[in-house]
Amino acid sequence: MVYEMSKTTAPATARRLLLDAPFLVAARGERPDHPPVWFMRQAGRSLPEYRALRADQPMLAACMTPELVCEITLQPVRRHGVDAAILFSDIMVPLHAAGVGLDIVPGTGPVVHTPVRSSSEVKALPVLDPAAVAQVATAVRMLVAELGQTPLIGFAGAPFTLASYLIEGGPSRHHEHAKALMHGEPETWHALLDRLAELTLTFLQVQVAAGVDAVQLFDSWAGAVSEREYRQFIAPYSARVLNRLAEAGVPRIHFGVGTGELLGAMTEVGADVMGVDWRVGLDVAAQRVRAARPHGPTVLQGNLDPAVLLAGWPVVEREVRRVIAEGQAADAHVLNLGHGVLPETDPQILTRIVELAHSL
Amino acid sequence: MVYEMSKTTAPATARRLLLDAPFLVAARGERPDHPPVWFMRQAGRSLPEYRALRADQPMLAACMTPELVCEITLQPVRRHGVDAAILFSDIMVPLHAAGVGLDIVPGTGPVVHTPVRSSSEVKALPVLDPAAVAQVATAVRMLVAELGQTPLIGFAGAPFTLASYLIEGGPSRHHEHAKALMHGEPETWHALLDRLAELTLTFLQVQVAAGVDAVQLFDSWAGAVSEREYRQFIAPYSARVLNRLAEAGVPRIHFGVGTGELLGAMTEVGADVMGVDWRVGLDVAAQRVRAARPHGPTVLQGNLDPAVLLAGWPVVEREVRRVIAEGQAADAHVLNLGHGVLPETDPQILTRIVELAHSL
Repeated sequence: MVYEMSKTTAPATARRLLLDAPFLVAARGERPDHPPVWFMRQAGRSLPEYRALRADQPMLAACMTPELVCEITLQPVRRHGVDAAILFSDIMVPLHAAGVGLDIVPGTGPVVHTPVRSSSEVKALPVLDPAAVAQVATAVRMLVAELGQTPLIGFAGAPFTLASYLIEGGPSRHHEHAKALMHGEPETWHALLDRLAELTLTFLQVQVAAGVDAVQLFDSWAGAVSEREYRQFIAPYSARVLNRLAEAGVPRIHFGVGTGELLGAMTEVGADVMGVDWRVGLDVAAQRVRAARPHGPTVLQGNLDPAVLLAGWPVVEREVRRVIAEGQAADAHVLNLGHGVLPETDPQILTRIVELAHSL
Repeated sequence: MVYEMSKTTAPATARRLLLDAPFLVAARGERPDHPPVWFMRQAGRSLPEYRALRADQPMLAACMTPELVCEITLQPVRRHGVDAAILFSDIMVPLHAAGVGLDIVPGTGPVVHTPVRSSSEVKALPVLDPAAVAQVATAVRMLVAELGQTPLIGFAGAPFTLASYLIEGGPSRHHEHAKALMHGEPETWHALLDRLAELTLTFLQVQVAAGVDAVQLFDSWAGAVSEREYRQFIAPYSARVLNRLAEAGVPRIHFGVGTGELLGAMTEVGADVMGVDWRVGLDVAAQRVRAARPHGPTVLQGNLDPAVLLAGWPVVEREVRRVIAEGQAADAHVLNLGHGVLPETDPQILTRIVELAHSL
């Protein structure tokens, strides 16, 4: 059992030693020779070779097919020469694997067949058996063998973001049912988040045991709440996931959209690298992260606005140089977008960003 | 011509004198006997009497029918006893009235028939003739006669938010075409915002001349940009609208969602009352607004989370008391939501919030 291996062996010894990989150097808080760069959603719809592979493959089926996961994860590494690969997956994969009925509907997003809103529905939520995501572990092992010196980032959705999808039944603009449950039935809320923390932790432990070199915890919707709500209802569960991963020794990246006001609180839950969206400059972000963790290195990831990538190369070049300059305020900086690559992005722009970063 | 009247007469003398109305007392920076309260989107889908009236009336047609505007605006005043009425309208009304082809599609929002993305398309944008919104002026005059001592708030969408709808062609999650134009073709961007500032100003001047007691400028999408972008590409146009309205002597409220980081910059463009969403406490908001305008009164509006209104009365009561307590950090506070009333809100909860605020 993959999960048992992660408990009984020291995962770090099973992994490749990529100490000189620029992405991992930066994640430790040191400055590599050039700014490392990768892109959230680099393995995805901006690439014609991705769209060709996905044409007759539903999302969840693709995520559970190791050969496809491997190929889709490798595509942007081959094409752009990015400094890290990110596992092709979806934040709903562990829920799907555990047996929660859901679909990823093109143009809509995740749709959960039966929303989870009551205490009995929370109690009925299945636990994730590591064997149920064995295909993901297989994909990670295949990738580690293929990737050579390029690090592989695993990922999972954070408990709050998974909770919002489960409670709302799908993507939500206002998260009204999630917030009503959080405030109106806090015991049910905490029971749900408790289960989702375990599920998320299991999924990440499987990936770590199989050999990922770093993990990113996506709390996509955290920007919908106030800092007060974040600290009371969300932070304890993200902290449990990240703290129990600490022993694995891989860098832990944490990211949410619209979370400028939460950067301190999100650092405190146990992130080694804090992802920043485009709304806050990296200079300001560095101050907030450093204030929250004054004794560790301040490492930021981001924060090009993905929309700006549609404005033509001269604008993109100017923005890349600005972001890298602002990133000097941190101890180390991983160049990335402030959100995922937009589908209509010209992939050549991504390649040029990598070339520019590597020339600096 | 209504517009000419607004230039040649002093609009304040044409208006009712409601100096003691709690909402207007607070808007001046003083503390009325009880916290004044109204709700964004109070005239709307949470009310069965509204849904009955709108059943066979498309949105834009309803907004251009004075009797309907009057009745819908009055409904929440009668039902809840709020301290202010807000004109029933839509931010797309002045564009529609000027002749831009668009629809408000139920479940989607505004859909613009031909997106505006080029210099020639910007030049072809029609100017708003005040006569084209004469029905809105008529509705305002009817309302002023009906409302007695309850102030009437007029409103308009801010130039950036209108620009995003025009450029994207409809609601947008990423505003990618708007941002690409902003950064990639700044001359076209500024020409567009220049025209939209004039359109917004004309629409608000018509409302002021007809007798509204305050105005709110909604920059719904401002939270999508960084402060740097806001100051360079957006603020000058909002400032033009608000500064040219100053002579009218009515309080100017300014509001956007997710704009905690922009509260200072949005105050500087000329707001008398700053609307705050639920993500930032009013105590923190007061510091930011005061820092941006140290010599004027700090007046805040907000910031109950509309989603929390679905969590049951005990939670709502606790949140109302917390928000009112945090609002003490400002010189004055208008109790409101941090965004519009959600359609599934129980209207009785709104009535109870008003009763609670009036009892404090």
